[in-house]
Amino acid sequence: MLSELMDFLRIPSVSTDPARDDDCRRAALWMAEHLRSLGCAELELLGSDTHPVVHGEGPPVPGRPRVLIYGHYDVQPAGPLEAWLSPPFDPEVRGGNLHARGATDDKGQLFALVKAFEAASREGRPPVNVRFLIEGQEESGGEVLLALARERPELMRADVVLVADGPWYAPGWPSAEVAVRGICYAEIDVQTLAEDRHSGLYGGVAPNAHEALVRILAALKSPGGRIRVPGLYQRVVRPPRSERDSWKALPLDLEAFTRDEVGAATLAGDPRRTVQERLWALPTLDIHGIAGGYTGEGAMTVIAAQARAKVSLRLVPEQRAGEVLEQLTAAVRAAAPDHARVEVRPLFLADPVLVDVGHPASSHLNRAFQEVEGRGLSLTRSGGSLPILGELAAGSGAVLVAGLGLPDDNMHAPNEKFSVEQFLKGVRVFGRLLDYLADDTIINGGGA
Amino acid sequence: MLSELMDFLRIPSVSTDPARDDDCRRAALWMAEHLRSLGCAELELLGSDTHPVVHGEGPPVPGRPRVLIYGHYDVQPAGPLEAWLSPPFDPEVRGGNLHARGATDDKGQLFALVKAFEAASREGRPPVNVRFLIEGQEESGGEVLLALARERPELMRADVVLVADGPWYAPGWPSAEVAVRGICYAEIDVQTLAEDRHSGLYGGVAPNAHEALVRILAALKSPGGRIRVPGLYQRVVRPPRSERDSWKALPLDLEAFTRDEVGAATLAGDPRRTVQERLWALPTLDIHGIAGGYTGEGAMTVIAAQARAKVSLRLVPEQRAGEVLEQLTAAVRAAAPDHARVEVRPLFLADPVLVDVGHPASSHLNRAFQEVEGRGLSLTRSGGSLPILGELAAGSGAVLVAGLGLPDDNMHAPNEKFSVEQFLKGVRVFGRLLDYLADDTIINGGGA
Repeated sequence: MLSELMDFLRIPSVSTDPARDDDCRRAALWMAEHLRSLGCAELELLGSDTHPVVHGEGPPVPGRPRVLIYGHYDVQPAGPLEAWLSPPFDPEVRGGNLHARGATDDKGQLFALVKAFEAASREGRPPVNVRFLIEGQEESGGEVLLALARERPELMRADVVLVADGPWYAPGWPSAEVAVRGICYAEIDVQTLAEDRHSGLYGGVAPNAHEALVRILAALKSPGGRIRVPGLYQRVVRPPRSERDSWKALPLDLEAFTRDEVGAATLAGDPRRTVQERLWALPTLDIHGIAGGYTGEGAMTVIAAQARAKVSLRLVPEQRAGEVLEQLTAAVRAAAPDHARVEVRPLFLADPVLVDVGHPASSHLNRAFQEVEGRGLSLTRSGGSLPILGELAAGSGAVLVAGLGLPDDNMHAPNEKFSVEQFLKGVRVFGRLLDYLADDTIINGGGA
Repeated sequence: MLSELMDFLRIPSVSTDPARDDDCRRAALWMAEHLRSLGCAELELLGSDTHPVVHGEGPPVPGRPRVLIYGHYDVQPAGPLEAWLSPPFDPEVRGGNLHARGATDDKGQLFALVKAFEAASREGRPPVNVRFLIEGQEESGGEVLLALARERPELMRADVVLVADGPWYAPGWPSAEVAVRGICYAEIDVQTLAEDRHSGLYGGVAPNAHEALVRILAALKSPGGRIRVPGLYQRVVRPPRSERDSWKALPLDLEAFTRDEVGAATLAGDPRRTVQERLWALPTLDIHGIAGGYTGEGAMTVIAAQARAKVSLRLVPEQRAGEVLEQLTAAVRAAAPDHARVEVRPLFLADPVLVDVGHPASSHLNRAFQEVEGRGLSLTRSGGSLPILGELAAGSGAVLVAGLGLPDDNMHAPNEKFSVEQFLKGVRVFGRLLDYLADDTIINGGGA
């Protein structure tokens, strides 16, 4: 299984990089071929030549429930190569961990679901009807799958949706997610000059694009961490007290979390809110990078005509990504100096989603984790975003968002890894789950 | 002459880029060989294997004054290649202008001085004793030449120093510079995390290095353009009223200057000070670029552990670059959030210089310009910096800082150019100047 996964990880399917379009297609083909080898039929590559959704159906099992397995074959850019201890697309097992870009997000976790399907099948017959929908744009907006959901909504319908794309709350603490944050990712472009100028010739009168951008960005958040985008907090619904109380029961060594897991001297955000609330139930604003001017070796004295920031806001129920984009645009324009032309361009919008966890499928997953790990599920939220989740939740009886990663997996960062033990646990947990779902007379429609 | 200059311009002698070390040495060798071909002797490459100072002496002319010709063979980085209409190191003449990196700064202007020396020589005998000191680090701190000035101060001694490294005040308005700004160029490094983090996992609690840096940078200047570095303005000496009044007589179409020359909607800086005062006699603070995080295609959601800004302050008499570095460092530390580790590293320090323009050599230069251009010299200041100028001024009777460029030469920017007509005028003006200096019985020590 590991050797197969390593083949999958070798494909640099970075969906945000147009230079990797062919690799994204290769990853889709690899996954389709693999599903075929496991007995799946009706295999299709849908919606895009370069970033198709892989659709496949396991062998039909009449009278049994339909389980939709969702995952994504695309990965984040590798980032600074010099920070990787082994090349990001040359997977390596070190100290019980598989290191590669995509190891945990999401190729490794997805592959645990695929292998659970394989392990639970007996003589080519799986316990339930399984549909695979595996996309190639989760890291870049998910437009292809979102369009597919509009065109073929029947594909989104299932009794239970399984998603494994995130970490446990902590080692030994499996968790299912009650809510997933949305995202509004945008580029802010600032132009102050027709062309770059030399600070020795025009320094003192030429408006500096970086200075304008820095002024705008600094205005978007208070030093205390409150986002200064008018209207942003209006729709933010605080989680019920019962849910917030349950978070207090989760283990959290604040000092170790701060120093070892986050890697910071002190945490950011409003200190009057718990760490979990800041991570899961409050919007954020982060700057991801600033381009323009000169950042190479030495002392170039350019006043850049243009500067660009990549920023994103994570959103919480009941915020709407499109509305937040408008609010951000207005705040940027309000903060811009008169001499600056600004533009805010959306790169990636996804609404936040609240999931119903009262479904019996949650109990089966809880039991499977209890048996394999010795501890049942904690109900948490995800600070990340999953563009298609809203459509999947609307089309299905239950959505189980339960990851297999660990918090130190370096998701989206150099040296991403996935614990081999977590992978094997995942195969066992999800294999059991498929069996339990098959036996559930309510879910499979057999009645009592 | 143009064909020779184009050979010189083809050498990409970018002194701030270690990858161009060999090219810098090649440019030095090219210039030394060219001076040898013009009859210079005592040719030496001094102080550095990669960025040597080229020293050469014209044929001795006993009883005549010694003129030191200073210039630099190094150039700025080319910057964004896609912005160039022709490749920066493949010189091209278009519309009467020679386009290349270094065309105006300083290879073209320097070459006009070299060719003036050639043109003024008759049967191998120049009118005055000429020494060439041509450095390869003017764009990167000038350390090699500064060290040479300490080791061999006699090399800096001359009756008159000629520098052509800057633009005229305006087309048709030749100018000599009374003062040159200094510079304090530094990198500001900010670290908030041990490693990059994912905003979906840690957004809301992980302190963002770019946010800290943006907050620091925004704090360093008021929206009105006043630099907020405590102590910075203490030593700033305002030019005398007579000098400021003379600037008011210079032509300035403020709207055309703003829109066409600077290329801005409105000018930056204190509107209560004239444009000339802002350009020449007030300190500046510019951000040149910000590195760290992700600036590639698409929506990577990284929270960068580190971010770096390149910034510089231009300094005016009587500021001192070393003191300003300390003031900047203190201001950066004061503005840094608690969770940020900051470091300020100097890349390039040069003190401002005031030049004595009462020397008779100034009158000769004025006459030469009057004859060639039909207008004598305006006395201006330079907003740029020339690290060695202080040493040259201390070792000589007079320093003439009189450029040949035009304000729209795109110095330090894409599509740098030098007018062929300006080049030819320069050869004529400086050729005459050498003759006039030879005939001046006071300067050449012959007495009356």
